Amino acid sequence: TANTSSTNYGHVYNPNAQKVSLANLDTFARRHIGPTPANVQEMLKTLGYSDLDEFLTSAIPNHVLIKRKLSVSPAQGYTESEMIEHLQKLAAKNKIVKSFIGKGYAGTKLPAVIQRNLLESPEWYTSYTPYQPEISQGRLESLLNFQTMVSSLTGLPMANASLLDEGTAAAEAMSLSFHNMKGKKKVYVIDTNLHPQTVNVLKSRAGNIGVEIVELPLSTEEGITELNKIIKTVCGGLVQYPGTDGSIHNFTKVGEILHSHKVLFAMACDILALTVLKPPSEFGADIALGTTQRFGVPFGYGGPHAAYFSTTMKYSRKIPGRIVGVSKDRLGQPALRLALQTREQHIKREKATSNICTAQALLANISANYAVYHGPAGLKNIASRVYGFTTLLAKYIGQTEHQVLNDKWFDTLTVKLSGVSADDILAQALSKYNINLFKVDESTVSLSLDETVETADLVNLIELFTGKQVTLEADTELPTIPEELIRTDEILTHEVFNTHHSETAMLRYLHLLQSKDLSLANSMIPLGSCTMKLNATVEMQTLSMPGFTQIHPFAPIDQAQGYKELISEFEKDLNDITGFDATTNMPNSGAQGEYTGLSLIREYHKSRGEYEARNICLIPVSAHGTNPASAAMCGLKVVPVKCLDDGSIDLVDLQEKAELHAANLCSIMITYPSTYGLFEPGIKKAIDLVHANGGLVYLDGANMNAQVGLTSPGDLGADVCHLNIHKTFALSHGGGGPGQAPVCVKEHLKPFLPGHTFNADVTKPDSIQAVNSAPYGSASVIPVSYSYIKMLGANALPYVSAVAMLNANYMVKKLQPYYSILFVGKSTPHCAHEFILDLREFKAQGIEAIDIAKRLQDYGFHAPTMSFPVAGTLMIEPTESENLAELDRFVESLIKIRSEIDAYINGDKSGMVLKNAPHSMQDVVATPQEEWEARGYTREQAAYPLPWLKNNKCWPTVSRLDDTYGDMNLICTCPTVEEIAGE
Amino acid sequence: TANTSSTNYGHVYNPNAQKVSLANLDTFARRHIGPTPANVQEMLKTLGYSDLDEFLTSAIPNHVLIKRKLSVSPAQGYTESEMIEHLQKLAAKNKIVKSFIGKGYAGTKLPAVIQRNLLESPEWYTSYTPYQPEISQGRLESLLNFQTMVSSLTGLPMANASLLDEGTAAAEAMSLSFHNMKGKKKVYVIDTNLHPQTVNVLKSRAGNIGVEIVELPLSTEEGITELNKIIKTVCGGLVQYPGTDGSIHNFTKVGEILHSHKVLFAMACDILALTVLKPPSEFGADIALGTTQRFGVPFGYGGPHAAYFSTTMKYSRKIPGRIVGVSKDRLGQPALRLALQTREQHIKREKATSNICTAQALLANISANYAVYHGPAGLKNIASRVYGFTTLLAKYIGQTEHQVLNDKWFDTLTVKLSGVSADDILAQALSKYNINLFKVDESTVSLSLDETVETADLVNLIELFTGKQVTLEADTELPTIPEELIRTDEILTHEVFNTHHSETAMLRYLHLLQSKDLSLANSMIPLGSCTMKLNATVEMQTLSMPGFTQIHPFAPIDQAQGYKELISEFEKDLNDITGFDATTNMPNSGAQGEYTGLSLIREYHKSRGEYEARNICLIPVSAHGTNPASAAMCGLKVVPVKCLDDGSIDLVDLQEKAELHAANLCSIMITYPSTYGLFEPGIKKAIDLVHANGGLVYLDGANMNAQVGLTSPGDLGADVCHLNIHKTFALSHGGGGPGQAPVCVKEHLKPFLPGHTFNADVTKPDSIQAVNSAPYGSASVIPVSYSYIKMLGANALPYVSAVAMLNANYMVKKLQPYYSILFVGKSTPHCAHEFILDLREFKAQGIEAIDIAKRLQDYGFHAPTMSFPVAGTLMIEPTESENLAELDRFVESLIKIRSEIDAYINGDKSGMVLKNAPHSMQDVVATPQEEWEARGYTREQAAYPLPWLKNNKCWPTVSRLDDTYGDMNLICTCPTVEEIAGE
Repeated sequence: TANTSSTNYGHVYNPNAQKVSLANLDTFARRHIGPTPANVQEMLKTLGYSDLDEFLTSAIPNHVLIKRKLSVSPAQGYTESEMIEHLQKLAAKNKIVKSFIGKGYAGTKLPAVIQRNLLESPEWYTSYTPYQPEISQGRLESLLNFQTMVSSLTGLPMANASLLDEGTAAAEAMSLSFHNMKGKKKVYVIDTNLHPQTVNVLKSRAGNIGVEIVELPLSTEEGITELNKIIKTVCGGLVQYPGTDGSIHNFTKVGEILHSHKVLFAMACDILALTVLKPPSEFGADIALGTTQRFGVPFGYGGPHAAYFSTTMKYSRKIPGRIVGVSKDRLGQPALRLALQTREQHIKREKATSNICTAQALLANISANYAVYHGPAGLKNIASRVYGFTTLLAKYIGQTEHQVLNDKWFDTLTVKLSGVSADDILAQALSKYNINLFKVDESTVSLSLDETVETADLVNLIELFTGKQVTLEADTELPTIPEELIRTDEILTHEVFNTHHSETAMLRYLHLLQSKDLSLANSMIPLGSCTMKLNATVEMQTLSMPGFTQIHPFAPIDQAQGYKELISEFEKDLNDITGFDATTNMPNSGAQGEYTGLSLIREYHKSRGEYEARNICLIPVSAHGTNPASAAMCGLKVVPVKCLDDGSIDLVDLQEKAELHAANLCSIMITYPSTYGLFEPGIKKAIDLVHANGGLVYLDGANMNAQVGLTSPGDLGADVCHLNIHKTFALSHGGGGPGQAPVCVKEHLKPFLPGHTFNADVTKPDSIQAVNSAPYGSASVIPVSYSYIKMLGANALPYVSAVAMLNANYMVKKLQPYYSILFVGKSTPHCAHEFILDLREFKAQGIEAIDIAKRLQDYGFHAPTMSFPVAGTLMIEPTESENLAELDRFVESLIKIRSEIDAYINGDKSGMVLKNAPHSMQDVVATPQEEWEARGYTREQAAYPLPWLKNNKCWPTVSRLDDTYGDMNLICTCPTVEEIAGE
Repeated sequence: TANTSSTNYGHVYNPNAQKVSLANLDTFARRHIGPTPANVQEMLKTLGYSDLDEFLTSAIPNHVLIKRKLSVSPAQGYTESEMIEHLQKLAAKNKIVKSFIGKGYAGTKLPAVIQRNLLESPEWYTSYTPYQPEISQGRLESLLNFQTMVSSLTGLPMANASLLDEGTAAAEAMSLSFHNMKGKKKVYVIDTNLHPQTVNVLKSRAGNIGVEIVELPLSTEEGITELNKIIKTVCGGLVQYPGTDGSIHNFTKVGEILHSHKVLFAMACDILALTVLKPPSEFGADIALGTTQRFGVPFGYGGPHAAYFSTTMKYSRKIPGRIVGVSKDRLGQPALRLALQTREQHIKREKATSNICTAQALLANISANYAVYHGPAGLKNIASRVYGFTTLLAKYIGQTEHQVLNDKWFDTLTVKLSGVSADDILAQALSKYNINLFKVDESTVSLSLDETVETADLVNLIELFTGKQVTLEADTELPTIPEELIRTDEILTHEVFNTHHSETAMLRYLHLLQSKDLSLANSMIPLGSCTMKLNATVEMQTLSMPGFTQIHPFAPIDQAQGYKELISEFEKDLNDITGFDATTNMPNSGAQGEYTGLSLIREYHKSRGEYEARNICLIPVSAHGTNPASAAMCGLKVVPVKCLDDGSIDLVDLQEKAELHAANLCSIMITYPSTYGLFEPGIKKAIDLVHANGGLVYLDGANMNAQVGLTSPGDLGADVCHLNIHKTFALSHGGGGPGQAPVCVKEHLKPFLPGHTFNADVTKPDSIQAVNSAPYGSASVIPVSYSYIKMLGANALPYVSAVAMLNANYMVKKLQPYYSILFVGKSTPHCAHEFILDLREFKAQGIEAIDIAKRLQDYGFHAPTMSFPVAGTLMIEPTESENLAELDRFVESLIKIRSEIDAYINGDKSGMVLKNAPHSMQDVVATPQEEWEARGYTREQAAYPLPWLKNNKCWPTVSRLDDTYGDMNLICTCPTVEEIAGE
């Protein structure tokens, strides 16, 4: 039987039953889990069970249930106050040093009004990706501001709504350039003056798709000569501006050469520098990319930050990641939406330039609002001040024997030292001034100043390099940027960047935007496969703790002992939970996790001399579209595996294909419980079949929330998995990012876990290249999930999974009289933690899934996942955090909608309420009566179909987006694997 | 000419013009002030001036304008990041010690979800008192929860929506008891076991109204005998439960004796104890009072916290402070509102049992939601655990030579020490365990445990008293409360206390409540005399800094050096700004400030032997109603002074009355600029007249926002003033509190500034008694206003006042073609920082001020102050924080309303839109068409009278409250001075 028995848990969560003892009372599990123990009993009774044990053993195949107990300590979990105290101790072990290390990460000041009203606002951070535009106009407007900001600063007309980091943005540029030449030109040229970690990520990505990276000194005559020599094989080129050494070069010539061979010229640019320096557009760049971190987003020991990517209109449809577009709604009002043409739903194997799914929405929104708050003049002032400080310092260094190697600069100086070693200078800077510099080599250092630099820092740095104490007056006028470098065109001329400069105005603007969006602060967001659970305040508070946020990702490791301890413990816990032996925290999104996992498998085969041979990846047709895209990025050929009618893998087809491709079998990618929300009994058999034919097994952790403590990828026999901590482990979705995806592996893959140039801890002799810019990806979100695990502890973690499953099955039971639920009740009596509402029967009569999805907005709810994994369906995942009352409200809404469907089918005009849904406030209030009367239902029926909506309703702010402006495709409606695998 | 010239300020606020220097760029003034320098020029042009100088010298009489510069340093103000750094340094100088001092203040755990989504949410803290119920249903519901909680826990059916602190709540009980006997019985009996500071506040209040406080040991036979002896002179009695020494006594007998003489029996009760101990209702109490601080509100070095006050239905109309009542709206829907019967608007001299205006709404809401989150079982668990810890400790102490003096207890033990002095024990506790205890006398200590006590604390305390190290297991079951003490009835059975126990549910409940309310995060709140300016995030962040929040008010002063330094500097700055010599920060509301200021004046006369003789207080008829109420509380007889037609004081009448009452003249209370919003030229003359006749001058600081840096009470010649830091100095209004009111005085009043039993710093030989419970009132809000002053500095503070005036006068100019503006343009060309819209001309035609006030809600705005100081008018104060665009939107709305008034007057049915206002969402959406058509205007005209409302509108959630349920009286609509002064 299961190790999970209801009697093990009741007392922990029921304050009534709680025995009063010396133990602290502010326990977490009962706060995180929606249903009370009494509710759980009631729901079990509804399902016909007497306890959780009985339910679980019925719902999960016995050979899948694990017998071991988790060892996450403390087993009873920290209470909230204990957690905060523990986190503060860890944060205090990180040493806050003023880091002028640079390398793409700069100190910045997050305006307090943005910190409080965006970063620390659940209305912003608990919302989902804006796939439902009618209840997302706030975020969409903010992301449109982000795109506008990037476009204005880079001078390129088209920008996306953020990428993961600068390194992966560079890789996307390379990939776009490569695929733009249809893969026929294999060389990608990069300047020698790029950030080292960007080079690593490029190399990581290049290898598997057969691109060769060639580094040339493109700012020199020699480099140009070399470029001309190889230009015919070159698919594109990338330079950095300013360079990693701080120098500023006019790369017009490079652009001309690349363009003369019709290949793309990309520039990685410092976003702050672009407010005052000539933009990449003036050098002929086709692509500009970089990070917007220094626009208000703290270091966070590496992330999350929003990278940007902009290009010319010619490549607008090839731009990776999400793009917000201006469109209109059903009633002709302007409305924003994600423009879908180049989105992950449309990734096709033959065009798979990217597997990117998520973005860094929360961080992009911070940066966009930083620009809104400062405006063009404010940003230019910040940039000019940084330049001025840097130039003053250079002047003083110029009076010594030390030599500033770069003759032009924005914020960075590279200094050849005289009579002192780099190590000595670094040690002095740290011990005397609490400043970090960057060591270039034994006799060279560099430093990058930023918004946080103060007069005292400058005085200290001058003393450090000159030995002299100078006195500087606060009102000293600073050197100005030389004419040949300075930007002459206007930036950020749009109204939004010139309006909200007082705190009151900014506060109201942020509040207005958030008021347009639906988040978990409003109602449940039952998106199947997205696990929209509580993001508890204690967890999220870690994102505001300076001990976690103010650490440069390349700070000396001994300054980050708190992080080291936390991450090490986190990895231990994840190993326990997944049944694996080792974990990397580098991948900063789910898709990155997939890419990393597959790369490790390829490296494993390589170590056995089978890299070339083993290039087939089996993927069940039910898989999320990112799986085959990731496989393609790893140079693998995708072979689809069929599914049976009940959604489970066709083991016969699997055996056939595994054996057919045995000599070339690299891997299989499986999601478990399946994307259909089922605990397939054949999972172990499937794994064995692949192993027997020489392949390794990749388990996609998207549905880990049904597994924790009940089963695990490792226990099932898989070799590697990734976890979406923004799903199972309570990291907020941030309105479309950040994500973070640890990858866990068995012992035989451990040696290959990715290394990083600037972090010896993660780097092993056989490590693969870094998969993104920072050693621990978006490190600062790790404490969020760490807290989640530590507050639940070994005791409550399995109970969480059990309640997640119970919530889903309770809804199934309540909905079954009204709707067909796919698969459940056939080969298996229960779903796992999510289930599929089959709406295909109504299609012939004119009602489609989108009508129900949009109508749910009128009931104050976010739609479930639409048409994934099965077209014409809705997939519902309530999670354990929703309480019984909320489940009942959602069920009641769907039942009422069922009667509306009947009305429509029966030709009752009132059924049009589905087709006209959602009804925005403006629609309901301002539609003239003559027009309204044609509708066949009242305004009240439109807006208040159930009585409790009068007291509490989150309104859509626009009507249904106009389909003629593009596909109204929702989340996860990726193309099927067949499509991706090709005919 | 003025010391304020536009050329002095332009560069500070205009980022375009900002010279880039070494100085930090994150300056504050340009964020605080709405209009940009370009806007200021535009507005000056509208008014016909070329610069601010010219405007100011025209608007302010020359002899009123001061020539001195402020000396607030740094003159240029701290930037935001400098301010945070400075505050952190100050906070770090306060030593955080676990304080088991007790005396009415207990450690508590503020749940993180409430901290983030209420205490740190501008939607909660920037809203005003809910006088406009249609846009305040969220706060009102929460305050109703507070009342329900208090009523349930005390067992008394009627509770108010909070008082200032326990000491003043006790004083209100005394006052109610005294006035209930019509002042004929002069003795108020209190138990000897009250908190010392409560006794002080009682004595402070008793003296001036002629009540004699008699302390008796009411838990003893001897005390009962004494009580019986004097019972005929007794107007009421007060006991504490548990007593300040921790003991628990059954006071039924005391109640019986008091009741046998028809006087009131009051009990001060510990709110947490009431969850498990027999309630005061079981002892026959007529009044229960106390603090709800330990329900989630940090120490804050004394406040703010919400006190409670409950009573029987018999005294429901005599209860002081605000009461939320259930009512219904125009359309018959249930709706909440402030029940006005006993409110400050109704204070009449002959019934003036209180001058209380404000409450502690924000803190009451925290405590109410703490109860909502924990529920009855959760609260009982917390209380039981505290009891268990205390009992275990008592058991261990019982095994030593030390003696626990109280034989029953809840959380407090008083310990007679053996072989060691109290000082030694306190020193050991502090140095070894970082714990504060309370010293009772040289050989006695007491300690009070609380929610924050942990096993380690208990082990430490046992070691402290027994010298033995014990080991205690976390799951040790604790002693339970003895049957004779335990409460047997159910508490908090209401749905709201039994629903929102998961964090998700709590988050959504808080979000739902806040979504119903209008705050500064939505739009301007132009309440005249309320100064609803920006509450900047940096300022408000201080309320979350543990270095400021975690200090017990009676902690040793050397543990609060950060506070000491901050308050001392704050007082220095206030002295500078007001032109006075000394400041007390004790009064924790404006009314308390008035009471304190007048008490100081009385004490001054007393020191000259003129206490009895000088008992007349002159008050202009334009004064706020609190003025005469405060005077009455100080035992003064109010003599009203007439005003001229233009609103200024009638100097002839003043001279006549001052001379008539010369022998008895105590003081005059003047508001300046006047409550009519005018810089009266006669102010100095008025002051001289009073001085010449032996009186002192009290200047009410309500309108200080027009004075700072331009003139000052001290420079004008006044002797004392109070400041509302929740107006002028940017402390948030919190939806109806906290307030805080420093009182500033000239040298001759300084010796009398109030002292405090537990604080030697504030206590001088001639100090008057404490006016409220804590030495610095609500100390933790002082850093908010301190930050405000320090970020503006001497340079920008006068500019703030100038822009506040400019904003008001710009609106006057724009509105004059459409409305009569009272007084402006007659004897004076300009208003000060506020102005009065005269609507009386429409009254005869059926339109009243309330119609315009309510209709403004449909435009998304909070109404201005209604019918104060002139009935039938609206008083508008925009403050400097509103930018030009927002002023224009408000003006545009009023102009549109003017056309609606015309429609109504002309008999156009569409004019009914004013009478039916405000239109709630439910009204607009759900009113059946047949009914709607009778209205004469469309739904769109109702809800979207101007086009920008479609994009951004804060909706009322109910329709106009039904007048038949009580007066729909708005803020500040106090009775006139004539009414108060009697016929």
